[in-house]
Amino acid sequence: MSGPYEERLKKCSRLMKSEGIDALLLAKPANMFYLTGDGRLCAFAMITNDGKVALGVPKTDVKEVRSLARFDNIVGFENEVGMIHAIHHYFEQFGISKGTVALEYTFLTKSMMGMFTHPHAKPEGIEVKDATPIMSELRLVKDNGEIKLINEATKVADKGMEAAVEALKPGMTESQVAAEAEYAFRNAGAEEFWRTYVCSGPRTNIAHGLPTLRKLKKGDLVMIDIHPIVNGYSADMCRTVCVGNPTKEQQEAYDLYLEAQQVTISKVKAGVGVAELEETLHRVLREAGHEKHIFGPPIHGVGIEFEEAPLPPGHAFFHGEKEAPPLPANVVISIGNCGLYLGDFGVRVEDTVLVTEKGYKVLTSYPRKLEK
Amino acid sequence: MSGPYEERLKKCSRLMKSEGIDALLLAKPANMFYLTGDGRLCAFAMITNDGKVALGVPKTDVKEVRSLARFDNIVGFENEVGMIHAIHHYFEQFGISKGTVALEYTFLTKSMMGMFTHPHAKPEGIEVKDATPIMSELRLVKDNGEIKLINEATKVADKGMEAAVEALKPGMTESQVAAEAEYAFRNAGAEEFWRTYVCSGPRTNIAHGLPTLRKLKKGDLVMIDIHPIVNGYSADMCRTVCVGNPTKEQQEAYDLYLEAQQVTISKVKAGVGVAELEETLHRVLREAGHEKHIFGPPIHGVGIEFEEAPLPPGHAFFHGEKEAPPLPANVVISIGNCGLYLGDFGVRVEDTVLVTEKGYKVLTSYPRKLEK
Repeated sequence: MSGPYEERLKKCSRLMKSEGIDALLLAKPANMFYLTGDGRLCAFAMITNDGKVALGVPKTDVKEVRSLARFDNIVGFENEVGMIHAIHHYFEQFGISKGTVALEYTFLTKSMMGMFTHPHAKPEGIEVKDATPIMSELRLVKDNGEIKLINEATKVADKGMEAAVEALKPGMTESQVAAEAEYAFRNAGAEEFWRTYVCSGPRTNIAHGLPTLRKLKKGDLVMIDIHPIVNGYSADMCRTVCVGNPTKEQQEAYDLYLEAQQVTISKVKAGVGVAELEETLHRVLREAGHEKHIFGPPIHGVGIEFEEAPLPPGHAFFHGEKEAPPLPANVVISIGNCGLYLGDFGVRVEDTVLVTEKGYKVLTSYPRKLEK
Repeated sequence: MSGPYEERLKKCSRLMKSEGIDALLLAKPANMFYLTGDGRLCAFAMITNDGKVALGVPKTDVKEVRSLARFDNIVGFENEVGMIHAIHHYFEQFGISKGTVALEYTFLTKSMMGMFTHPHAKPEGIEVKDATPIMSELRLVKDNGEIKLINEATKVADKGMEAAVEALKPGMTESQVAAEAEYAFRNAGAEEFWRTYVCSGPRTNIAHGLPTLRKLKKGDLVMIDIHPIVNGYSADMCRTVCVGNPTKEQQEAYDLYLEAQQVTISKVKAGVGVAELEETLHRVLREAGHEKHIFGPPIHGVGIEFEEAPLPPGHAFFHGEKEAPPLPANVVISIGNCGLYLGDFGVRVEDTVLVTEKGYKVLTSYPRKLEK
């Protein structure tokens, strides 16, 4: 075991004990990656509250996992039945026949829950609980290595945004705009990315503007939201840009949203609450008469995932999260996750921001302006 | 209501009645898209067994959904609380206070299940059941419009594969190979794509080879698995190509796998079973002495999703599916979803294939050869 893993496991043990959890049984790649150094699809990690770690992966993957994960208990399985038996095997090997195991309620589907709690996997005497709050608390504050990686991802995001914005012209599809950003990411060092959102014209008013074959027209606003992953860590950035010259109404809406976002960023400092930041952003919009044009939570965490804890309180509840504490230093958040939606169009500017003891550092730096 | 939706809803009503289901409450975009013409994140559709349809979407999205969905009951909500109340409202409006509602157990996480079955959403007297088998049965056989769209997606996949293979050279990363395919898709008319898998060298031996920053070396095999989406429908294709001249061992493994895949394709005809196709492919590998080098189910359906029903029986069970019936004509499947894994490298060739009354039509056509 090397690097940050010993520290993470120690903290994990402490949290598990205080929550009365005997073992974590994880399947979410982001959580497995954080605690073991390897996270992949169709795999699991079991972690006991006295620090024992075991992994189960497709039998084809054992050699690669051995080179990436920091632990020795790695078993390969043949198929779903083998996966279930491997889980049972580790419960036995670790001597866990009663107590509580925590599963990821915000990741496992109902049918996967059934598989992981099948009597051939989990001994029947073991209670089940949600692992989400512990994993969110663990991953909330980033260590120096993580901050360095997130910072690298923000530089790659800047390059992706530059490529997309420079390519904008009437006649190209939203999908082609996404193509420019993604091509630039992958060539600038991203191994992967979370889904790119590009919407244009009237589609800038919608909440989750995934790209379509709509062609850009002169005068359209285009909203570009990108999330490259570099060495396992993500950035999150959105810009709204006009194809041609913006109208007065577009420019005013943009200026107002940018003001709201910048005022919110200026409030960031260790100890601030997510709800307070959300209220700051919304207040600027509300006071300008736009109460009805606000939608969705504007703040969330950024790390291994581009959207992770901390989440705003209401949203957090429905996503199985506890309310986030006042933010400690070295939390990374995104500010501007949701915009101003005027009906015919919307505007939004989003940046990845590091919380520091004395204030903040904005990690994404591509220029914020409506005109190209 | 227009196009194929009336027909789909009629069949849906029939299946719901025969399964004792009073309403479907859907949240999976692919299922919503199939039955209503619109599928998006953070939304729901309720469909009663007498053919009433209602949609709930973020309030920002109502106008767009009205232009895409084929039904009139569309309500916008403000946040998760609003979503829950909207669900409750439709249960009341449709007069459903007891009986059975079907939810997507293979899509909803444990925490989303909690939200959809919250007493403020679902009246307490209503039982809950899995919607997966009904939705899979509905979507199994494609109509002519769907086959046309899948065929278009396969043409776009051919272009993506050509771009990726032509770009291959030592020194480029796996991620850069993916970039070439994705850039070509989006420019050839794909609005989106499912995650691209690219793995190289020893990584061709792993089950889910997502791209990394590993650089291609001369003599490496590269496995490229792509899934563009065109107008809502997907294609699925994989090719394995050598960077330079393949060794005798690489070529023999490739020739064997290609033979197994082609023999399997030749068995496709209305009435064939998924298990029979799987067994045909595996038998060729087994008889060549490779029993230990087989992993994972080689056959699955293709449609709105690049991996959907029919699934092979064992896999299906764990994914909440019923065993698929003998395949009727106009089912679209992928053949070659899992490869031959020799330890130091793997090989795989995958194509999207239409089942017809008299046999089959291979829809993806990029050349199958190991040398560029």
